[in-house]
Amino acid sequence: MVVPRLIERKRDGHPLQPEEWRELVARYTAGTVPDYQMAALLMAVMFRGLADAELAALTDAMLASGARLERPAGGPVRVDKHSTGGVGDKTSLILAPLLAACGVAVPMMSGRGLGHTGGTLDKLEAIPGFTTRMPLEQAADQLDAIGVVMFGQTDEIVPADRRLYALRDVTATVESIPLITASIMSKKLAEQLDALVLDVKVGSGAFMPVLDDARTLARTMIGVGDAAGCRTVALLTAMDRPLGRTAGNAIEVAESIAALRGEGAGDLMEVTLALGAEMLLLAGGAPDHAGALRILKATLRSGAALDRFREVIRRQGGDPRVVDDPSLLPAAPVVREVHAGHAGRMPPLPPRVLGELVVALGGGRRVADDRVDPAVGLEVLPRAGQHVAHDEVIARVHARSEADADAAGSGLRRAIDRAFQAREEPLPLVIERVTREGTETPGGTPWAP
Amino acid sequence: MVVPRLIERKRDGHPLQPEEWRELVARYTAGTVPDYQMAALLMAVMFRGLADAELAALTDAMLASGARLERPAGGPVRVDKHSTGGVGDKTSLILAPLLAACGVAVPMMSGRGLGHTGGTLDKLEAIPGFTTRMPLEQAADQLDAIGVVMFGQTDEIVPADRRLYALRDVTATVESIPLITASIMSKKLAEQLDALVLDVKVGSGAFMPVLDDARTLARTMIGVGDAAGCRTVALLTAMDRPLGRTAGNAIEVAESIAALRGEGAGDLMEVTLALGAEMLLLAGGAPDHAGALRILKATLRSGAALDRFREVIRRQGGDPRVVDDPSLLPAAPVVREVHAGHAGRMPPLPPRVLGELVVALGGGRRVADDRVDPAVGLEVLPRAGQHVAHDEVIARVHARSEADADAAGSGLRRAIDRAFQAREEPLPLVIERVTREGTETPGGTPWAP
Repeated sequence: MVVPRLIERKRDGHPLQPEEWRELVARYTAGTVPDYQMAALLMAVMFRGLADAELAALTDAMLASGARLERPAGGPVRVDKHSTGGVGDKTSLILAPLLAACGVAVPMMSGRGLGHTGGTLDKLEAIPGFTTRMPLEQAADQLDAIGVVMFGQTDEIVPADRRLYALRDVTATVESIPLITASIMSKKLAEQLDALVLDVKVGSGAFMPVLDDARTLARTMIGVGDAAGCRTVALLTAMDRPLGRTAGNAIEVAESIAALRGEGAGDLMEVTLALGAEMLLLAGGAPDHAGALRILKATLRSGAALDRFREVIRRQGGDPRVVDDPSLLPAAPVVREVHAGHAGRMPPLPPRVLGELVVALGGGRRVADDRVDPAVGLEVLPRAGQHVAHDEVIARVHARSEADADAAGSGLRRAIDRAFQAREEPLPLVIERVTREGTETPGGTPWAP
Repeated sequence: MVVPRLIERKRDGHPLQPEEWRELVARYTAGTVPDYQMAALLMAVMFRGLADAELAALTDAMLASGARLERPAGGPVRVDKHSTGGVGDKTSLILAPLLAACGVAVPMMSGRGLGHTGGTLDKLEAIPGFTTRMPLEQAADQLDAIGVVMFGQTDEIVPADRRLYALRDVTATVESIPLITASIMSKKLAEQLDALVLDVKVGSGAFMPVLDDARTLARTMIGVGDAAGCRTVALLTAMDRPLGRTAGNAIEVAESIAALRGEGAGDLMEVTLALGAEMLLLAGGAPDHAGALRILKATLRSGAALDRFREVIRRQGGDPRVVDDPSLLPAAPVVREVHAGHAGRMPPLPPRVLGELVVALGGGRRVADDRVDPAVGLEVLPRAGQHVAHDEVIARVHARSEADADAAGSGLRRAIDRAFQAREEPLPLVIERVTREGTETPGGTPWAP
């Protein structure tokens, strides 16, 4: 294999052979293909894309670079959910125990927050004592035992992706749909899933803000998943505003606990149950969509989902009492209220701005090794579209200091004022459902819980 | 300067600022911008090109990375010629002493052969004792003393280009017109020239085989040269067949010596004199094209050009007697004749095939640190278009061994047979003249010597 000739072919728009991708990834992971050649190839991929067979081979080669989550014969159906990331996006914390309580095995391998988007691991680690780091074998054991594990990617899983992602991050080769797909899907396939539900966010706070791009990403991921024997369905959901009431870490855990009690905000429950219904349907755990929603809601009402979350926390070293007493979660010393400067319908608030305010409060990361303050964050009380009265308390800032609260409070106030002036219409919460068969727009209420 | 953001801008089709290019090159040369970021950026340039201001800044930054050939006040006009490379292209060996004998200072800084194309340095080093390696100061001294020096790029000159070229070579980012231009022109501008004549080859053996690409390269180089105060003119010349009778090293020196005596093959003399006339005109050494040709031919006839070559050889440690007795040049132990299998008009022979045969004989390089055998090579006796009789001796192989001669002889025979079957018409030797004012096609004979 002469690497410059492969780069040249990709540069000139010709596909590489699947075996060539496999050898390239194996040699890159082994260190015998240098970063500079991979960087040039990745930039050529940014311009030329990847054919289906190339993408399948790249994903497979990345998957082959590491270990997989063990899968005993005859175990329960294994289903995961993956989100492209957003602000206030806490559905994983609710769905993992909820679906496990419905008999689905959920190996929820998640990531950390970066930039304006939060990360499931950071949120979980706001629970005192909770650990998300464990060997793959231990994750498999817990999954067998209680049907759910919520953990971080270890060094054993898809090491090729870690190296490639670090390189892409510094060479402006992140925003490529096939490269994003290979990165996500290689990790999801390492979980040895039967099925996967993708939550592809759309809107200004999304990684792919534009609907068409998000749809293309969804279709590309579905193609790779289905071809690898992992039935994949995607929902395109709204990220033109934060999801739910909270953005931060401990405060998102508290909101997730409320949701597991059936007391979640309407928007959060709608998206969560829509994703959960897809998971349950793919697992064969419900006859149809309406039936799936009934089962999920009954499981919330019965307390079984909450019990399962308590069990996850206990198993993973956390303090399970937080489930019944969220005041045991880290709390910020300063809480500042923000009052509405306008009366009228609550507009969608820009997720990037709010996410950056959380980062500025210390609740997120600018660079990968920043420390995260679990206690800080933002609460926004009304949902987009609800009527608010002038001077009503519409938000709260949870801050480490008065100065931080001042800064975030005025930033939030400015963002709210601008949003009131812009009067944008919120996107539908669930915009489209994408499967290998095609795309459906949910009409009316069948998606609402 | 945040390098990934610069790469991203270039990737997305936005120009970088001149200062950004300068800082990038300075930091890359200093080693604080890593190869992988430069590789990604270069690949983005392959797709997006460079705006004029970017190219000027890149060239200037590369030039600034090293030393320049000293230039005393009030010295003679300094003019060089640069060829994009070909097979049998020995015009530098003739032009440097010829123009010096006409009073023009010629700092002929050249390169080595790679792949199917030969290199001036390799040819000169076929002269016993001849050295092309010297400090820049010594090159400047010799230029002052005898008006000509023929030397290799030292570590002092444009170190940024050496690093960039090595990277481009292994990342499939060589074939970019702006990058080629910056590489060539930064080195030529380091010679502190008043003017430059470019010999841009066209045809199957050329670096840019297609006329349009060659013209674009010529125009791009002219733009950079003229903007930097180095008046630049380009001739597009034929490389659909080797130039002159020989391809190799010592045998090309012998042919160059014959040409300096006025006994060169018609095609070689036509191209050499066309380039030389441009050099002399740019130097202000002739009133017009016809006058320039008259002066050049008179200088050949008088022996002054040959004397100057003898002086170059003596100054650079070589055996000057080779000029009068070419049998002192290294000779191959085996010389094999190839007879015409057809009668008819001699077709253009494919330069790549012939160049590769020279490499196979040991007379060229597959990789940069291959050793070159000075004695071997090919002779092709008739010019394209001349009538040849069946069984006439039309070529000779100069080989190190019988086996090599067998292999090259049958390869050459096959190439000749195929060319006779293909019956392609040869390109005009001088196809176009390109200046900042525009493009002219030489009509009829004014270009012929």
